[in-house]
Parts: sequence; structure tokens; C-alpha cells
Amino acid sequence: MQRKQIHPQGPEFSRMIAGVWKWMDEQTIEKCIHAALDCGITTFDHADIYGKYTIEELFGKVLKGNSDLRSKMELVTKCGIKLLTDNRPDHRIKHYDTSYEHIIASVDNSLQHFDTDYIDLLLIHRPDPLMNCEEVAEAFDELERSGKVLYFGVSNFTTTQFEMLQSYLSMPLVTNQVEVSLFKNDLLFNGLTDVMQVHRTGIMAWSPLGSGKFFDDTERMHHLSVLADKYKATVAQVLFAWLLQHPANVFPITGTTKPERIMEASKSLTIDLDKQDWFAMLKLVTGKDVA
Amino acid sequence: MQRKQIHPQGPEFSRMIAGVWKWMDEQTIEKCIHAALDCGITTFDHADIYGKYTIEELFGKVLKGNSDLRSKMELVTKCGIKLLTDNRPDHRIKHYDTSYEHIIASVDNSLQHFDTDYIDLLLIHRPDPLMNCEEVAEAFDELERSGKVLYFGVSNFTTTQFEMLQSYLSMPLVTNQVEVSLFKNDLLFNGLTDVMQVHRTGIMAWSPLGSGKFFDDTERMHHLSVLADKYKATVAQVLFAWLLQHPANVFPITGTTKPERIMEASKSLTIDLDKQDWFAMLKLVTGKDVA
Amino acid sequence: MQRKQIHPQGPEFSRMIAGVWKWMDEQTIEKCIHAALDCGITTFDHADIYGKYTIEELFGKVLKGNSDLRSKMELVTKCGIKLLTDNRPDHRIKHYDTSYEHIIASVDNSLQHFDTDYIDLLLIHRPDPLMNCEEVAEAFDELERSGKVLYFGVSNFTTTQFEMLQSYLSMPLVTNQVEVSLFKNDLLFNGLTDVMQVHRTGIMAWSPLGSGKFFDDTERMHHLSVLADKYKATVAQVLFAWLLQHPANVFPITGTTKPERIMEASKSLTIDLDKQDWFAMLKLVTGKDVA
Repeated sequence: MQRKQIHPQGPEFSRMIAGVWKWMDEQTIEKCIHAALDCGITTFDHADIYGKYTIEELFGKVLKGNSDLRSKMELVTKCGIKLLTDNRPDHRIKHYDTSYEHIIASVDNSLQHFDTDYIDLLLIHRPDPLMNCEEVAEAFDELERSGKVLYFGVSNFTTTQFEMLQSYLSMPLVTNQVEVSLFKNDLLFNGLTDVMQVHRTGIMAWSPLGSGKFFDDTERMHHLSVLADKYKATVAQVLFAWLLQHPANVFPITGTTKPERIMEASKSLTIDLDKQDWFAMLKLVTGKDVA
Repeated sequence: MQRKQIHPQGPEFSRMIAGVWKWMDEQTIEKCIHAALDCGITTFDHADIYGKYTIEELFGKVLKGNSDLRSKMELVTKCGIKLLTDNRPDHRIKHYDTSYEHIIASVDNSLQHFDTDYIDLLLIHRPDPLMNCEEVAEAFDELERSGKVLYFGVSNFTTTQFEMLQSYLSMPLVTNQVEVSLFKNDLLFNGLTDVMQVHRTGIMAWSPLGSGKFFDDTERMHHLSVLADKYKATVAQVLFAWLLQHPANVFPITGTTKPERIMEASKSLTIDLDKQDWFAMLKLVTGKDVA
Repeated sequence: MQRKQIHPQGPEFSRMIAGVWKWMDEQTIEKCIHAALDCGITTFDHADIYGKYTIEELFGKVLKGNSDLRSKMELVTKCGIKLLTDNRPDHRIKHYDTSYEHIIASVDNSLQHFDTDYIDLLLIHRPDPLMNCEEVAEAFDELERSGKVLYFGVSNFTTTQFEMLQSYLSMPLVTNQVEVSLFKNDLLFNGLTDVMQVHRTGIMAWSPLGSGKFFDDTERMHHLSVLADKYKATVAQVLFAWLLQHPANVFPITGTTKPERIMEASKSLTIDLDKQDWFAMLKLVTGKDVA
């Protein structure tokens, strides 16, 4: 498994990242952690809210039971969304909170859940219209100073939201985690990945295979299967390879709960897609040649 | 009334600003000036074209008749639009003019109208496709050197128009005056306020309550009334408070000709909207939760 | 004919540029070169792919037969598109290639075709989603060092693609060649020309008269004819003048194969369009007054 810096001043991650948002119980978590580590996937993508605020703690229980695991992995987590859920009775509406107090409190919670001293990378989960950049900068400075968080980034930010927050910070935002895949490729063409490259900021890609509905188009899937066969690969693997080929330094996040799927994903890095095949895959989705 | 710098190198204004575009006669003007000053609103927003090029002069007559008024207020005015009106018979079509000559001449006119030595803040009223940034820079330099204008800004500029002009200027653009309200909130989400924050440039908000048509939705108005009651406030006041809460450093401009409405607006600053209520108001307009 | 730098650190070009994409045979090429030079148009716009990869070579044959011609002209050419054509049997799909190898090879081809030692200006023809900016930077550095290419630019790039590539280069991109005309004027209003002005980068305008379909609107054409009469000019000339008046430093590219049309275009520079006429022409297309 390739390891790569997500930003010139950022951490080194495994090029494929394991997303935990569907890992709902300890058994699944333990099984998937081992599957991931076995194939070189060492970076795990969390958020405070996954499993309605439960997965960090379950994941932490597995870490406590396996004392050598923490040192073998990088933990990414997020804060800033306040969900409407029975687990947070004071929330009357889904909203965002990127206040100094909430960021600090959320990280302290995450550290306790994981039973660890540090988070490798903390992301602001969504762009908050009420985000006070000076407050976020103070919170990040405090978390860096105390060693509680090593690196900082954002998720689902537009280019201008990214550049606004960056302009207030003393450290670089090392990633913008966004939804991008062959099937949902607008961010590759609307300026998002361009501006991230200006900042040398790598992309963490969520939903890198696209949502299931894209797999209903049987003709398109047939073409993808034929192409996958050419590379002795699966359709999922050529979809990952399509993203990995892009110059935006993309780190795909798997979403599966199945160890064999994690293993499958990890092998995508060995596929060297021909440039013409890359454009042919794009044309499958856009329906037309490039200009 | 809070007083605040609209930009770190800009003037200090009253946080609520009195817009004069509907103040059509001397009597209204005199009455409204006193109402505004009485509640701490000291900043008055003009344009050369208001009242078809008549209001600056009427306002100036009131200033002449009350010799201590000028020193108690900040005057903002604008240039760059050429209206089709009987008052300007040489205009054959509505157009823009941001030439050196027109900017200088328009300011000289405004100074004469107001019977004053200086304008506190001059804005280019609309982005002119023929704007020659070097000429504008020369005009601004000349006006600054002569003391005729203290600060400079723009109105209704997109982010790229703003950054283009700024790149030619020796002084910062201290504001971008734009249309923004709970009901017309696109600029809070399309990058405009993000980029203004990168430049630390405050927003002057015109039509901060939205146009009247928004008040026809009785269900929405009911929800706003219930919320206003919670804060012992009026609907207008919570609408102002919603804007004031935004981190973009927004200075709402009232448009009313009624002294009691000016007084009402000035009290919006005392409302401390709960974060969840802010998002609930947004949802009233978008019809959905945040992502 | 006005000569002007297209960028403060860029080459001096004739303000009108001769586009060769329809010059399909040697006879036309020789005739048009002389017509252009006779009226001061010294800059010729090529691409490797014009005439399905044939025009550079035909143009070069004319240069070989007239040994003093090369020194009287500036040659612009492009690379990066791979066409689906019998002339390139290894292309299975229209795609882009902006790899180091392809850029270098394409320039070497162009030099050989033109029988010259240097290209005045090389453009990346289309924004390639797989463009690796570091590779492009290496190729440009190598081409500059060897003297094979004097200046560099792009074509059909969005603002963010432009700024991304620029952020990796040691030299300025001196132009962005784009489609712009009175009839297709979106780039004047969507930020493209704003950002180019921030970079002091001039525009080369392809299809500066708009495509033929725009000439089918007889009422609009009537208005343009009346306006042209006022300036004792042709409709084409006022359309060129409309672009030349814009502050974005626009260099229109003629597309004609007729010497008399080249001559006609060259005279557009003498027209000094009244500001109100400029806005009246804009209104003919937008159907409404400016805001």
C-alpha cells in the first residue's frame, strides 16, 4: 500500500483510507481494523456524529482491548455538526456549531472515546454559515499547542470557504474531504480540485464509488466490466483507480463493512489506467467527448 | 448603538446605517436625520442618483440649515451609474461611467450638494464592464490626496470584480454594499461573504429585511412572529438580528422614511439570537435542514 | 495597426491576430499571410491539430519559399488535444495529453513543420483534467531554456484552472485564448476577464464576431447596421471595436480566408465607440438595460 503525504506540511497517510461510518458494533470494528491493517490501510476516518455519536466510543473499546493498535494507525475525526437525535436531547434542529467551546469540547470527547492522547487530523465537518474564523483559529492553535491534535483540515468546503478559513489560520489546512467519484465528478470540473492544488492540499474522497443508484445503469456497468476485465480487476477497483489517477492527490475512503471489500479496494493502487481509458470512463458518464 | 470599524483600515460607523434613497423632501430628511442621530445612527447612505439626482442636494440644504449636523455624521455616497432621466438629457440609455473624469466630477458635485469638504466613504455603485482599473485607481488617489474622500469601497460587486479592482488600488476597499437578507441570502452561500472576509471587508446590507413580497407568506410570518415574541421583539428586529449575527461584519441599511421605524431598527442590536433559532430562521426560507 | 504587449512580461503582438484554422491549402495561406502583413497583422494563431494536424506544415512550406517571412511575424501555436482522426490512428477517443513527453514532442513537431528555431507563444489548448502541473512546469522550463518557445499561455481555461497552473510555473502565463464576442459575452461577466486582469494577462479572442447564427436575427442586424453607418464602418468592424474597447486587453483573432476581410478587420482599430453605443450594443444582446 502506497503511503503519501496529504499535504507538503501534512501527515503521511495510507493512500486508501478506511471509513468507519457504517461500523456499528464492536465485532465489525475489530474485524475491519485488522483487515485494513493487514493490507496496509492505516488511516481511519471518523466523525463525532457517526452512529449518532456512538462509533468513536465503540472503536475506542476495541483499541483498549488491543493495546498495540493505536500506534499502528492514524485517526481522523470531525466536529461541527449537531444532529437531531435522542442522544443529544438539547438539539431542537440540525445545526452547526464551530464555536471555540464546541471544537475544544468535541475534541476532548473524541480523545476520551478513543482512549488516546492525540488525534492525527481534525476536520471541520461542514461549512458553518456562522463560523467565526478567528474563533476557529484560536481553537486550532490551542489544540496544536496542547498536542491534542496534530493536523487540521475541513470537509465539504467550497473553494471560497476554504480560502476564507485558511486566511485566518497559522497552520495549513491539509485536506478538504469531499464527495467525488467517476459518477459524481463535478468537483473535478467546477474549480474545487483546482484551488486545492493551488494550496497543495490533498483530497479525501468520500463515496468514491458513487452511491448505489449509479450501478443500476446496466449498459454503463457492462462497459465498466469490459474495461475492468482488461485490467484483470473489478469494477470497484477501476473506479478507485480512476480517482487515484487524478493529479489532485486523492485519498479514497472506503465505506464498506466487509473485510474482503477492504482487501479488494487496497489492490486498486496497482492498476495503471491508460489515459485513453480514463477519458473513455469519463465519457461513459458525461455522454460526450471532451471539447 | 454599537460603533464598529467596517474594515481594519476603514472608518468607524454606527452598526445600523440610515439609507436615504426614499427621503424625497426636506421635511422628511430633517425629521429622519434627527431620529437617526437620536438613537445613535450616525452613518447616512447616499448615491448621486437617488431621487433622480436630487436627494444629495436636498439633504445638503438641511445640513446648511443646521450647522452642527455635518460633524455628527458620516456621509457615504456613490457614483458610476448614469440614469435615463429628464434631469440628465444627454443620457440616451442607462449606462455606467467609471472614467477618471466622471468619478472626480461626481464627487465634486456631491461635495457641493452636501456643502461639505469631504465624503467619508465613496462607493463605485455598480460593476462597470468598461471599468478601467488604472483610471479608477488614479481617481481614488487624487481624491484621497486632496482630502475630498476619506475611504473607498464598492457596491454590488462580485468577488472577482472586487479582487480585480483591489489589485490596482493603493488603499483597501473598505466595504462592498450588497443586497442581503434572510429572504435573499444567496451571497452568504455563494462565496461573496467568504471572499469579503478574506479581505476583512465589512458588508453594507441593502434591503436587509427583504422586499415586501416576502411578507405575504402568512405561515412563514407566523413562525417569525412567534420567534420575535420569544425575544420580546418585532419581526423586523429579529430579521436585522439575523444579519447582525453573521460573522461577515454586516452593517444593515434601513430604507424607511418613518422615524419610529428607524428607532425600532436601532434596537435590533440588543437581541442575542440563539444559534438554533438562527438556523430555524434559515430553514423557514430554504425549506430544509442544513446538510 | 496598433502593436501592444499582451502581458507586461509578454510579447508585443499586432492588436488584431490572424487565425489560420481555416487556411487549408498553400495558395490560401500565401495569399492570406501577405494580406495580413500588408495591413500590419503580424501575429498568426495556429494549433498542432488545425486541419487535422496539417496546417502547420502547409504554412511552413510557404515560409520556406519566402525566406524573409518568418522574421516579420510572431507564431502562436498550441498543443494538448489528441484528435480522433485517420492522421493519428493510435487515438481511440478524443482526449487530452499534457504530459511532459507530449508537450516536448508536440513543440518539436511544430518547429519542424514551420522550419523555424522558435515558437513565439505556446498555449495549452484545453484544460486537461489529468494535467499534472509539475510536469507542465518542467516542460515549459525546458522549452524556455532551450529557446524553443519564448512565451507561454493557455486556451479555454477557467479562472481556477489558470490560477492552478500559474501557481506551479516560473514564468507568467501571458494569455488565455477564449471564445468571446458581443454575442457570446458571458466571460466578460462571469469572472474570467476579471481574474485575467488581476494577472495583467491579455485575452486572445476566438470567434470574435460570434458564430454565423447570430447574424440571422434581422432586427438586431438592422440596429447594428445603423450603428455601423454612424461610424462609417461595417458591422464586423463595430463588433471588433466593441471587443477592443473592453479594458481586458483583448486581441481579436480573425477566422477568415479572404484577404479583403482581413483588411476590413484591420481597420476596426480606428473606431472609437461612444460609451453609450457600447452599452446599446450590449442591450441588443441581453435585451435589457444594465442594473
